[in-house]
Amino acid sequence: MKRGMVSLIGAGPGDPELLTLKAVRRLREADLVLHDALVPANVIALAGRARAFDVGKRAGRKSTPQETIHRIMIHAAERGERVARLKGGDPFVLGRGGEEALALAAAGISFEIIPGVSSAIAAPALAGIPVTHRGIASGFLVLSGHSPDSYRGLLAGALPNSATVVVLMGLAHRRALAEFLIHCGWRPDTPAALVFAASTPEASTLIGRLDEIGQLPFPPTDGPGTLVIGDVVSLADRMSIAKQLSPALEKGVPA
Amino acid sequence: MKRGMVSLIGAGPGDPELLTLKAVRRLREADLVLHDALVPANVIALAGRARAFDVGKRAGRKSTPQETIHRIMIHAAERGERVARLKGGDPFVLGRGGEEALALAAAGISFEIIPGVSSAIAAPALAGIPVTHRGIASGFLVLSGHSPDSYRGLLAGALPNSATVVVLMGLAHRRALAEFLIHCGWRPDTPAALVFAASTPEASTLIGRLDEIGQLPFPPTDGPGTLVIGDVVSLADRMSIAKQLSPALEKGVPA
Repeated sequence: MKRGMVSLIGAGPGDPELLTLKAVRRLREADLVLHDALVPANVIALAGRARAFDVGKRAGRKSTPQETIHRIMIHAAERGERVARLKGGDPFVLGRGGEEALALAAAGISFEIIPGVSSAIAAPALAGIPVTHRGIASGFLVLSGHSPDSYRGLLAGALPNSATVVVLMGLAHRRALAEFLIHCGWRPDTPAALVFAASTPEASTLIGRLDEIGQLPFPPTDGPGTLVIGDVVSLADRMSIAKQLSPALEKGVPA
Repeated sequence: MKRGMVSLIGAGPGDPELLTLKAVRRLREADLVLHDALVPANVIALAGRARAFDVGKRAGRKSTPQETIHRIMIHAAERGERVARLKGGDPFVLGRGGEEALALAAAGISFEIIPGVSSAIAAPALAGIPVTHRGIASGFLVLSGHSPDSYRGLLAGALPNSATVVVLMGLAHRRALAEFLIHCGWRPDTPAALVFAASTPEASTLIGRLDEIGQLPFPPTDGPGTLVIGDVVSLADRMSIAKQLSPALEKGVPA
């Protein structure tokens, strides 16, 4: 009867084929699936026999308190259930997975981490943008646009244009971030890309300059967006991948 | 006869179960597999019927020139073959995948990117270290220890201890990096972890302070290592995951 456990699972960027073998196995074994709002239905459907609940948080909507998520996981595991906690991308990248792991550890519940394909890397990649590229960027920075204090602390003194910047959340504040980078000495014509719903049929990419990125139209889809800033963005054109991704691809700012 | 194509595939950190469904599908369809030195044999074995060649680069050993890799891929695709170019972690993180994609695009070869689980995120995660954690780090930086110029430019003016730093290559130079961070104002007692062969049966983790990390014994295995620096490392203890990972786990500096 001591089979109860929780798997904190990264669901990847959206395409069910970008789940790991282990994630799929745990979903199939699950009794209960607790998933984020952004995890697509065809990913959740892999957990055929489980009860599935959306416990996600989304801007401007009612959400399940974090403590409630902890309590549901703990109680289910104590009842002997297999719980799949399914989070978009990777569970430990800007997703409060660490808090959930600590809550489980404190309650003495068996748990495991199943890393996933993070949108921080995959969303640019699928739009033809490598986050690192020899001679252009030998490192990258992943941050939340919701946390100006932290990104200011990190970027203020850094050599401008020295690494690729990937922003996963808080894209609504991208204008302030862009202005801050330009204020720090980043070239206003640094290329930047907004990638939406990467890896799904609704995927689209908008490419512009850093000083235009605030004016680029807001997400054309309701899916998750990734902002990529840096000279690596200019490679997308040469790879000609972005164009294959979606007929909705647009370039630059609309008139 | 126009079926020739190249898939640039992320093989993940090592555990075959951390491959994506799509990666496994492409491996099974492949006629030719070109893999990095660090991709484990049980991952390559998934490509049952393909010819497989190690084209990897490893410190101090003879390696296949990058141009040769490009030429082999292009010729095989032109012959109508399905080529799986299998790279450790994610193909676009410090792995010259971008150069390979550009070479294929320039030659007019059909290709695709299949993102993988990056060790930059997964190696810490599997040792119980979330790269981001509310109240501790809302962003992280991934860089190569081989590129002091770039990490200096990036870290020199950044607020000390403001993000998690993950170093994927050049771990032999970790002492210089640690000294540089301390010189920049990072606390000498900032926790740091060396994670080796994450996700494999040989996995092990060494945890110490930033000012000790240069003296920690060199990789106990021949596998890939990941260095994680930042206060998030202190969470590993509370998650009690690192201890489960490997009996070889040690803590701190040996006497």
